[in-house]
Amino acid sequence: MAQETQFVLNSFSFLIWGVLIMWMCAGFTMLESGSVRTKNASVICLKNVGLYAIAGLMFYLIGYNLMYVGVDDLIGSFRFTYGTSEAEKALLGGDADAASDVLENGYSVMSDWFFQMVFVATTASIVSGTLAERVRLWSFFVFVAVLTAFIYPVVGSWTWGGGWLSQMGFQDFAGSTIVHSTGGWAALAGAIIVGARHGKYREDGSVKVTAPSNVPVVTLGVFILWMGWFAFNGGSQLALSGVVDAVAISNILVNTNLAACGGFIAAIALSRPIFGRVDLMVSLNGAIAGLVSITAGPDIVHQYWAIMIGAVGGAVCALSMKILEQIRVDDVVGAISAHLVAGIWGTLAVCIAAGGNLLVQIVGILVIGAFVFSASMLTWYAIRQLMGVRVTLDVERHGQDVAELGIEAYPEFVVLQDPDL
Amino acid sequence: MAQETQFVLNSFSFLIWGVLIMWMCAGFTMLESGSVRTKNASVICLKNVGLYAIAGLMFYLIGYNLMYVGVDDLIGSFRFTYGTSEAEKALLGGDADAASDVLENGYSVMSDWFFQMVFVATTASIVSGTLAERVRLWSFFVFVAVLTAFIYPVVGSWTWGGGWLSQMGFQDFAGSTIVHSTGGWAALAGAIIVGARHGKYREDGSVKVTAPSNVPVVTLGVFILWMGWFAFNGGSQLALSGVVDAVAISNILVNTNLAACGGFIAAIALSRPIFGRVDLMVSLNGAIAGLVSITAGPDIVHQYWAIMIGAVGGAVCALSMKILEQIRVDDVVGAISAHLVAGIWGTLAVCIAAGGNLLVQIVGILVIGAFVFSASMLTWYAIRQLMGVRVTLDVERHGQDVAELGIEAYPEFVVLQDPDL
Amino acid sequence: MAQETQFVLNSFSFLIWGVLIMWMCAGFTMLESGSVRTKNASVICLKNVGLYAIAGLMFYLIGYNLMYVGVDDLIGSFRFTYGTSEAEKALLGGDADAASDVLENGYSVMSDWFFQMVFVATTASIVSGTLAERVRLWSFFVFVAVLTAFIYPVVGSWTWGGGWLSQMGFQDFAGSTIVHSTGGWAALAGAIIVGARHGKYREDGSVKVTAPSNVPVVTLGVFILWMGWFAFNGGSQLALSGVVDAVAISNILVNTNLAACGGFIAAIALSRPIFGRVDLMVSLNGAIAGLVSITAGPDIVHQYWAIMIGAVGGAVCALSMKILEQIRVDDVVGAISAHLVAGIWGTLAVCIAAGGNLLVQIVGILVIGAFVFSASMLTWYAIRQLMGVRVTLDVERHGQDVAELGIEAYPEFVVLQDPDL
Repeated sequence: MAQETQFVLNSFSFLIWGVLIMWMCAGFTMLESGSVRTKNASVICLKNVGLYAIAGLMFYLIGYNLMYVGVDDLIGSFRFTYGTSEAEKALLGGDADAASDVLENGYSVMSDWFFQMVFVATTASIVSGTLAERVRLWSFFVFVAVLTAFIYPVVGSWTWGGGWLSQMGFQDFAGSTIVHSTGGWAALAGAIIVGARHGKYREDGSVKVTAPSNVPVVTLGVFILWMGWFAFNGGSQLALSGVVDAVAISNILVNTNLAACGGFIAAIALSRPIFGRVDLMVSLNGAIAGLVSITAGPDIVHQYWAIMIGAVGGAVCALSMKILEQIRVDDVVGAISAHLVAGIWGTLAVCIAAGGNLLVQIVGILVIGAFVFSASMLTWYAIRQLMGVRVTLDVERHGQDVAELGIEAYPEFVVLQDPDL
Repeated sequence: MAQETQFVLNSFSFLIWGVLIMWMCAGFTMLESGSVRTKNASVICLKNVGLYAIAGLMFYLIGYNLMYVGVDDLIGSFRFTYGTSEAEKALLGGDADAASDVLENGYSVMSDWFFQMVFVATTASIVSGTLAERVRLWSFFVFVAVLTAFIYPVVGSWTWGGGWLSQMGFQDFAGSTIVHSTGGWAALAGAIIVGARHGKYREDGSVKVTAPSNVPVVTLGVFILWMGWFAFNGGSQLALSGVVDAVAISNILVNTNLAACGGFIAAIALSRPIFGRVDLMVSLNGAIAGLVSITAGPDIVHQYWAIMIGAVGGAVCALSMKILEQIRVDDVVGAISAHLVAGIWGTLAVCIAAGGNLLVQIVGILVIGAFVFSASMLTWYAIRQLMGVRVTLDVERHGQDVAELGIEAYPEFVVLQDPDL
Repeated sequence: MAQETQFVLNSFSFLIWGVLIMWMCAGFTMLESGSVRTKNASVICLKNVGLYAIAGLMFYLIGYNLMYVGVDDLIGSFRFTYGTSEAEKALLGGDADAASDVLENGYSVMSDWFFQMVFVATTASIVSGTLAERVRLWSFFVFVAVLTAFIYPVVGSWTWGGGWLSQMGFQDFAGSTIVHSTGGWAALAGAIIVGARHGKYREDGSVKVTAPSNVPVVTLGVFILWMGWFAFNGGSQLALSGVVDAVAISNILVNTNLAACGGFIAAIALSRPIFGRVDLMVSLNGAIAGLVSITAGPDIVHQYWAIMIGAVGGAVCALSMKILEQIRVDDVVGAISAHLVAGIWGTLAVCIAAGGNLLVQIVGILVIGAFVFSASMLTWYAIRQLMGVRVTLDVERHGQDVAELGIEAYPEFVVLQDPDL
């Protein structure tokens, strides 16, 4: 292929897949706003739009440089803003001689930035679901700013940025650990600091069921995520410039799909023994867990492995949802199970068919987990001290929508709100 | 164009259009979950996610081989699993010499598989809408497994697989008959075996109206389908490797859109004389029928024909909805009218502007119809004998959501459920 | 790059971005159907599907020729229908010699048509939101036909068609003025002729709050618009045939995103001082206003300008929403503020970083505004005389859904309708 054709296709690939990954933010929003009670549905919508806006700005201002620019073993550069390269500016300004410099990069500078930005937004999206219905709007936004400006970029610099974990041979193709577990650890830390929703865990040891308030909207969210995942994993080939890329991306999309199928089937099958019924939310989370599981190594050539990796992911997620309930970690949408737990499994599963080194994978999982969890604990703790993290009991009772936004999500519909929680 | 560029673009074309066709599953889900009563909205969501998962697995395990591998006149191979070719594995494994073998295929093996898989899922999606609100969850899943592993692939082997109908000159560019009528025949067989919803047809001859419970969600579904159809028809050019493909796909997208416009306008105009009012559901189904109608021959060069073919499709669909009501075939969303009836019209319409042979088209319609309908009848009948196909009257009354999943789709909203049906 | 590769990529670029722009119609539909009261949600859905169908047909029959074919200074051709070129027909008919003629055009004729068609549909979408809840269904459709056949194409011929404003150097990359302000002026004219909703502005000077009835659906709409805007602006590069295009489109997508982020942040920050609370609708409209603002010049190379232009757009929009309320222009979704006002700002902002001539930009804004506003006033006035534009007070009270369609959007849900409005 001609070099210029490669450049065009590589850049276009970043952009079109990036657009579909941005769309996953809408998927998380629908999943979450359909899962919470109606009295909190508006605030969760606003949180999700806001986190996407904040993530984009923070990654522009600070995050990208920290993750990718001048990475030594441990970290990139502390430097404000990132942008179009000088060669590109010259080219767009009419200097045709700059083309060869531009072409040498293989893809346009900002197409890569765009692709990386939608990844950081995904990480932030994971957190909002777990902490729904009790974390304060502005406290959440502050955490998102820290997560997307610092925590995620540091993890990214160790791995995709070329730092020490990458040099050790840590494999995480599209981010089972780097994106999904990172989001999951941040959510877990938040769940600990913010605490469970009032009334969720009763004194007699029983757990209050909080059913999703709008199932079609939840299902739409899952379809959006499933769709976006093709872009998430396929785009992570990071190129579309030859026969190898085309074959690899094709395998990746197929494996991604089969893993989700496997995760769904495993979770729906296990939901009856574990939860005593065919459980819609568990089944849907099983599909997501299948997707998370294959994300670390979607470029395998034996498709049956994708089904099995996804199925184990779905099973592990279902089990984890039960366990978290029992140890009283309140995760409104099951994000910790679907993203953190399945993400760990997926990162280990790379050793099965994609040739990962088990020891290195474990080191990566542990170190990233320890860093993200402790940095997130610290951040949540600091936010609690400075501005509080949790709405008052009264706000929780009447809903964040009325209290924080002065509106209801469904103002004309007669709803039966549960005053206990 | 360089051979490698062609390979990359052909493969990418399969993948990106395929992703948009997968998205049509979300469209069917929204259309259906907004059309059923609230008491059945969760189950229809689960059915739709499940059918996509099952279709993907069955097509991987059995269907694709039956449809495309070693097709003699009548059928492909009974052989388990399909996957990356040996040449592709060698290439990805680092053997650069394998590239020429890989390139010779014109596109990556799994990109084609992915594209075909989303088609089989579409066929299954058509069935769930018709049978909503009374078919049992697991019985439906068993039918989907048979449909996607055997029934659809056999039809496909006769046509796109290169079998006898294809050799006769049967034309069905993107599947008015192969996908849409096949789904419609399977739905019709199901509607006969499963029977109408309790109370739908009253003893005094009148018909109970069952209005869609969530119109914005239905409308969203139609927009998703309309959008996905560009991929459905455009991707069926099966290549993006030169000027002819680019021109053809452009015409296809424009014709697809104009046919949908024509179908919508015809249906909204006819809804008043036929149904006594401007009918939203009929109008929306008219757009879908327009899309189905053009699907057999979207690659025509005179755009006005697309408008007319679509408009007739919309009219035929509106009429068919009325007739099915009168002959007491209970189709919750009008899928038989929009997919089967308009699909037949579209397959005949190929003779107008795309040069189809009328006799051959009729043979194709009849033989495929006879095969799919009888195979589906047999399958539904066998499922009924083995495990039952229909929920009990009590479940129907209280809704499948509570009975089969133990949840409600909108648990906090106060809804007025009709105890009669 | 080879000429044929350029042709394929240019055409494909029009198509794939065009599909995503079509998707924006679903975004407007969701935004609007979630913003209106439940009693009008079905009609607004039907209006949006209908306007897309009508726009497509009108632009095929009349609009495209008027905008692009044989444009002298003032206007294109009055000629029915547009279609595949003769050279393309010859090529598809098997005449390989026609390829060079086809290639010379740079892209397939109908790929460009498709891309332009989805733009005209966007313009029409803006109008439906402002006039929701009181404009008659068929009157609205007639206006859409005039807007998409005549008004928008005339503006387009002056600018993108190569007419007098283009020759003066008027810059509007993707249509801050040409698409968004045009839609906004048409909406403003409609708001004046149709008048405010009954009871919106009370005699004591206070304004009745009409909250969105379904916030998650509104939020979904905003995400769809944000996503589609990448295509709207990126596709407006009108080519993907080399390194310059790839770099430019990458910058465009990043700037588009950053402007939306800036608009959201500015609006949410200003919503408290201006409206007395953190306002979800104002914040979401701020993101849209950011997108509108950057649309006239998204191809800038300094990304921080995009943030600032978007932020000012969001601020201007929030302020405008307040002012329109005070001067009693009833705009149900805030479309005039987000599209017209922010569109004017965006067209001026071109002078900051994209090198526009301030005087020319002002001339363009004024002349287009004067033309679209007066032509729309005339059209709305004529429609009012011929068939009426406004539903009766009784219809307004009971809702257009029941009155015009005989259905309810949410028939099973118990809703509290406000009898005053």
